[in-house]
Amino acid sequence: MKQYKGLMAVLLFVLTTAIATRAADSVELWGMYEVTLKGPTNGNPFLDVRFSAKFMNDHIDSTFIEVPGFYDGDGNYRVRFMPDGLIAGAPVKWSYITSSSAPELNSQTGEFMVTKPAANNHGPVHVTNTFHFAYADGTPYKQLGTTCYVWTHQPKELQEQTLKTLAASPFNKIRFCVFPKRYTWNTNEPAMYPFEGWPKNFDLARFNPKFFQHFEQRILDLQKLGIEADIILLHPYDKGAWGFDAMTAQEDDRYLKYVVARLAAFRNVWWSLANEYDFMKFKSEDDWERIGQLVARTDPFHRLLGIHNGTQIFNQTRPWITHASIQNGAAVAEFGRAELYRDAFRKPIVYDEVKYEGDIESRWGHISAEELVFRFWNAAIAGTYCGHGETYKSDDQILWWSKGGALKGQSPARLAFLRKVLEDSPADGIDPVDKWQDTPIAGKPADYYLVYLGKETPTSWEFKLPKPPQGKGQPPADGMKFTAEVLDTWNMTVMPVNGVFTLKKKDNYYHADKDGRSITLPGKPYMAIRIKRVQE
Amino acid sequence: MKQYKGLMAVLLFVLTTAIATRAADSVELWGMYEVTLKGPTNGNPFLDVRFSAKFMNDHIDSTFIEVPGFYDGDGNYRVRFMPDGLIAGAPVKWSYITSSSAPELNSQTGEFMVTKPAANNHGPVHVTNTFHFAYADGTPYKQLGTTCYVWTHQPKELQEQTLKTLAASPFNKIRFCVFPKRYTWNTNEPAMYPFEGWPKNFDLARFNPKFFQHFEQRILDLQKLGIEADIILLHPYDKGAWGFDAMTAQEDDRYLKYVVARLAAFRNVWWSLANEYDFMKFKSEDDWERIGQLVARTDPFHRLLGIHNGTQIFNQTRPWITHASIQNGAAVAEFGRAELYRDAFRKPIVYDEVKYEGDIESRWGHISAEELVFRFWNAAIAGTYCGHGETYKSDDQILWWSKGGALKGQSPARLAFLRKVLEDSPADGIDPVDKWQDTPIAGKPADYYLVYLGKETPTSWEFKLPKPPQGKGQPPADGMKFTAEVLDTWNMTVMPVNGVFTLKKKDNYYHADKDGRSITLPGKPYMAIRIKRVQE
Repeated sequence: MKQYKGLMAVLLFVLTTAIATRAADSVELWGMYEVTLKGPTNGNPFLDVRFSAKFMNDHIDSTFIEVPGFYDGDGNYRVRFMPDGLIAGAPVKWSYITSSSAPELNSQTGEFMVTKPAANNHGPVHVTNTFHFAYADGTPYKQLGTTCYVWTHQPKELQEQTLKTLAASPFNKIRFCVFPKRYTWNTNEPAMYPFEGWPKNFDLARFNPKFFQHFEQRILDLQKLGIEADIILLHPYDKGAWGFDAMTAQEDDRYLKYVVARLAAFRNVWWSLANEYDFMKFKSEDDWERIGQLVARTDPFHRLLGIHNGTQIFNQTRPWITHASIQNGAAVAEFGRAELYRDAFRKPIVYDEVKYEGDIESRWGHISAEELVFRFWNAAIAGTYCGHGETYKSDDQILWWSKGGALKGQSPARLAFLRKVLEDSPADGIDPVDKWQDTPIAGKPADYYLVYLGKETPTSWEFKLPKPPQGKGQPPADGMKFTAEVLDTWNMTVMPVNGVFTLKKKDNYYHADKDGRSITLPGKPYMAIRIKRVQE
Repeated sequence: MKQYKGLMAVLLFVLTTAIATRAADSVELWGMYEVTLKGPTNGNPFLDVRFSAKFMNDHIDSTFIEVPGFYDGDGNYRVRFMPDGLIAGAPVKWSYITSSSAPELNSQTGEFMVTKPAANNHGPVHVTNTFHFAYADGTPYKQLGTTCYVWTHQPKELQEQTLKTLAASPFNKIRFCVFPKRYTWNTNEPAMYPFEGWPKNFDLARFNPKFFQHFEQRILDLQKLGIEADIILLHPYDKGAWGFDAMTAQEDDRYLKYVVARLAAFRNVWWSLANEYDFMKFKSEDDWERIGQLVARTDPFHRLLGIHNGTQIFNQTRPWITHASIQNGAAVAEFGRAELYRDAFRKPIVYDEVKYEGDIESRWGHISAEELVFRFWNAAIAGTYCGHGETYKSDDQILWWSKGGALKGQSPARLAFLRKVLEDSPADGIDPVDKWQDTPIAGKPADYYLVYLGKETPTSWEFKLPKPPQGKGQPPADGMKFTAEVLDTWNMTVMPVNGVFTLKKKDNYYHADKDGRSITLPGKPYMAIRIKRVQE
C-alpha cells in the first residue's frame, strides 16, 4: 500500500465523473474482482505494454493499492484485485483507475461493491502469534500440507482424480510447481508450457495464457476444497529438458512478475520461491535475495512467501520470508529438535519435507506410515507444522508425491485424526510449555495441554503440569481443575479419563494432582494425553 | 582497515623526519605494542580529549589501521596495537602517527620492529571453515570453554587459586564479566568498580583506570596459560546494586568504546556483548543491534564477537556476529539437535551454556558429570563446541561457575580426554558426515571418523562408513583401508582394534568392511570409535 495524498483530489474527481456512467458490480470480501480491457495485440504485448490499476475505498482514507495487470492473450488485458479489510455490516464501495502506456488501457475507471464473504470463505491465511497461522476472518488455520509437485501437468483424468482424493483427505495445503518436472518417475512431457514454443525452442519473452488459465482453474478447484495452493515458482528438476531452471535474471524477473500479476489475487495462493533452492546450480544466494524481494515487493496482497531448501537451509530470518519452509530429514524425528528452529527464525516453522511414506529405495522416500505420523505429532507438540508426501512404487509410474492420483498409504487417516485434535486445540496455536526440558508438552498454559509420548510405551503418566517460563503464559496454581483424555494417535481413539484432577504445587517446576494420581496408559507407542481446564 | 591513499605522501614525509630522532622499539607478532604519551589532566580527560593513532607498515601498501586510544589516568594517554600479518623471515617495520584534539598528543610519530612470535604465541583465534576456529598461525583451536562470571571481582587469593586451577584444567576459554554480579551466592561487594565513585554514586563519565589495569593483568595471566578471555561486556545480574545494566545509550556506547580501546589489542580477547541479553529489561533488540555494530566497527583487530541469550536466541545471522554463542538447556542433550543451528546460522556454534555440573536446586545447575561430558561429546560429533560450568553447593558460597576457586567435579578430567581426542582430529575440524540420518559420525570423509554411541550400550558395531552428501568431501571407496580404536570416554581409555578394515560397497549409502567384520564393544555407555585411514 502506498500513500498518494497528492493524487487524492484528482482521482476523486475522476471517479465521481465515472460513477454516473457505469453500473456498480459486486464481489465478496476476499473474492477476486477482475477488470478486463481490450488493448494492443501488435508487437509483443507481454513486453511492450505497461498496465496496472490503483484501487481504493472510501473507508481506508487516502490509501491506494497498486495492482499490476497482465496480458492474457487475444487482446485481453486484465488486472485482478482481492478486496481485504473488515466489513462492518454494510457493503463497502471500491473504485479503481487504470494506468497504462497504451491509451486505450489508461485512466479507465470503475467501481464495485464488496459484500460479505460466503460461509466457506475465511479469507487468505496469514501469520499470527509469531509461530502460527490464521485466516483473515480469525479462523485458526492448522497447516497439514501434502505435496504433488506436478499434478497439474498430468493428464486431465489424473488431475480430476487428484482433486477427488484431496477432497476426501485431511490436507489443507498442497505444494506444486508452475514448471514441469524431469526426474525419476517423471519422464512424461506436459500438455502445455508456461511459455510460447516447445522444448529447445521456447520464447521466454512470451507467456502462454492457456497454460496459466488452466493452472488458475486448478487453484480455484483447490480453493473450493478449502485447500491452500503453495505454488513453487522455481525448481531444479529440469535436466536440460526445458531450461526453466537456467533462465537469465531478466527472464526470471519477468516470469515472476507475470505470475504474481496473474495469481496473487487468488486468496488461497502461497508463494514457494523455490523447491530445493540450493540444488539450482545456476543461481547464487544473491539471486534468491533479489527475486525474493521482488516477489514480496510486487505482490499487492502480501501472500505468504517461503523458500524451501535441499541440504542448505536459507537464511530464514530475511524480512521478506513470512514463514520458514524447511526440508529436514531428521528435525521432526524427535520432539526436542523440532522446536529449535522456532528460536532461530522466530517465524512459523513448516517442515514441508520430512521424508515420505513409501517404499522407494531412496532414504527420503521410504519411511513407514507410523514414522510419518510420529513426525507430524512431534512437529505439532513443538509448535510447528509438518508436510506429507507419499512415494509407493507403482507400475504406472504414478507416485502421489509428484503426480497425484490416489493415496495408498496408512498415514492420511491418522493425519485426519491429528487435524481434528488440532482444530479442537486453542485458536492461538499450541506451543511447547517448558522447552529445553525434554518434556513433550505443548499447549496454552493453565488452559490446555497436549502430552505426546511418541515411541515410549509407559503404563502410566503422573499427572503434573510444568510451569511456563516467566511471561510465557499463566502458571498452573493450586486448586485448578482439569479433565483428561487418552488419545491413541495411531488407532485414532479418544478415551476420557474418569474424574477431575485438582492441582497442588509439587516443586519449583511442577504442579501435580493433589492426590498424586496418575493416568493409566496401555503400554503402547504413539499415545497422547489431552488435558483441559474445567471451566468454573 | 581504511584506505587513505591521499594521506600517504604526507605521512611518509612525517615518518621519515621522525625516524632520525627515535630508537626503534620491537614487539613480537601478535604481541601488544603500546604508545604512551603525557597529555591534559584538567577537565574530564575521558570525555574531553580525542586521541587515536594510525599504524602502517611498508609491506601492506597504503593501508592504515586506525586504532582508538584511551586515557589511563595520571596524565597517561595510551594507544595499544596488535601487529598482524605474515612474517616472511625478516622482521617488519611498522610506523605510527597519533591524532588528537590535544596538541601535545597530536602528530606524534614512532616506529618499531615486529619480530617472530614466541613458541607459545599462535596469535588471535579466528573463524575458519565456516564452523570452526584456528589461531592466526594456522594452529587449530578446539574450543573447550568454562565460565567463572566474576572471578576477577573476588579476593586476590581466590583469583590466584582460580588461575592455578585453570592452569591444570583442559579449558582453553573462560567467560567472565567486566561488571560485578549480584545473584544467589553472589552478594559480596567487589574491591573495585569500572567507574569512579561508589554504589548509588557512580560517575559514569569517568572510568577507573586501576580497575581496568587489574582486569588487564588477568587477561594477560590467561594469555600466558593459553586461555582465551571471552569478556562479557554487559549482563543483567545487577538488581539495582550498581545500575550498570540500566545505563543510557550514550553511557553504554562510551563504556563500550573505552573497553574496546583498552582491551582489543590483547590477542586472547573475545567479546561477548552480553550474557542473557534478553534478560536485560532496559534494552531493546535495536539497542543490541546498535552496540553490536559499534563494537564490531570500533575494534581495529576484529576480535570474535558473540551475544549470549537467556531463553530468546538472538538473530545469529547478523553480520557483526562472528560465532553463535548459545545458551540452550537441551540442544546438546541429543546429537541430532546440536547440529541444527549450524544450518540455521552458518557460523561456528558455541554452546556456551548447556546446564552445569552441580547439585544446586535449579535445573540449570544440577546435571551430573556424566551428563555434562555426554553433552560435550554430542556437541563435538555435531561439529559444534561446548562450554563447562560447575555449581556444587558450598558453605563458603564459592561456586566455580561464578567465583572460580577449585574444581570439585568429575567432568574436567574427561573433558581433558576429549580435548586430546579433538587435538588429534583433522586440523580443519570435524563435521557430521551424514547429517539428518541419525548416524552420530563426525569426521573428514575418507580420512578420519569419530563415532559416538552416547547412552547406547551396544556389544558390537558393524564397520560401515556413510557416504557424505555430494560436494561435502571424498566418498569412501572400495579398497580403502582403515584402522580403529575403541574409546571409553568416561574411563578415558583408548583400545586399538586388531587388524585393518578394507572397504567394499554395501549399498547406495554405505561402504562396509569387505569381510563384514564388526567391532566388539563392552556394552557400556559413553563409548566412541575412532577410525583413521591407513596411509599407503
